[in-house]
Amino acid sequence: MIILGLDPGTNRIGYGLINQGGGKTIALDYGCMDFKSVKDNPLANLPLIQKAIAAILKKYRPDLVAIEKIFFFKNKKTVISVSQARGVILAAVMEQGFKVKEFTPLEVKQAVSGYGRADKKAVQKMVKIILGLEKEPKPDDAADALAVAICCANTRDYTLAEPHPARWG
Amino acid sequence: MIILGLDPGTNRIGYGLINQGGGKTIALDYGCMDFKSVKDNPLANLPLIQKAIAAILKKYRPDLVAIEKIFFFKNKKTVISVSQARGVILAAVMEQGFKVKEFTPLEVKQAVSGYGRADKKAVQKMVKIILGLEKEPKPDDAADALAVAICCANTRDYTLAEPHPARWG
Repeated sequence: MIILGLDPGTNRIGYGLINQGGGKTIALDYGCMDFKSVKDNPLANLPLIQKAIAAILKKYRPDLVAIEKIFFFKNKKTVISVSQARGVILAAVMEQGFKVKEFTPLEVKQAVSGYGRADKKAVQKMVKIILGLEKEPKPDDAADALAVAICCANTRDYTLAEPHPARWG
Repeated sequence: MIILGLDPGTNRIGYGLINQGGGKTIALDYGCMDFKSVKDNPLANLPLIQKAIAAILKKYRPDLVAIEKIFFFKNKKTVISVSQARGVILAAVMEQGFKVKEFTPLEVKQAVSGYGRADKKAVQKMVKIILGLEKEPKPDDAADALAVAICCANTRDYTLAEPHPARWG
């Protein structure tokens, strides 16, 4: 089963693709897409973000897309711009008919490190170990995206908010 | 000059098209698009919202698109879902190369009623008078969208956050 994890920001979107099967979980690809704002007009990033996500979806055809939930009280300054970016990401995902699952930061940290308040360093270290990577994934956005994908892979007791039947490998 | 005003919500998008020229401002079209959530999956609305906005833009080719700014402290419960819808709307607008101008609710109320704390009823009444409508525009979402378009039409001292030269009629 291929899972795409996404860590959305206003100008940076972390992504991490993992494959879970045959008793192991490996990283297929990960990185961070950096969208420099068009001068005086950060809104111009939105269609670029959407196209980039659509391209990743077409390339890897994941079985599931996992994305972190955001909370307004934790991100007062950026909640609107990050939610706008998140909206276009989710539109691209839904448009192409992929399944989405949302996880809280606490669920993600709990899933990868066994501790809901783990720091970024601990998350990176555990992502490296779980996926058998040679070094810790960088930047933070990519590590966070891989972590949410791992969290999704390890969470089987949820119901998918989508009409198509789930294809559990 | 044709201006499209938009009032975004999670499931309802008010829109109002006005034409300003020859010393008068008239309404070309207005209404409210209602997106019923797909069962258990409100995210499924996002691509539908984007397509509907793209269709309005193609039909009317406005010179400017005006949209209300949102503030997290005023909309704690809905700020994330409304911002996500706003993101896909703005992506559709930017994708097609239209110019966007954002206005605060205070600026909109001030522009149509001369009073920044005017209530919905007062805004509807003034929108009716300014556009010479036979009755007050309904629902609220449509009236609010017309109000933001009027605000945009009456605001000339701004610089557009877009590289193309402004086409003031």
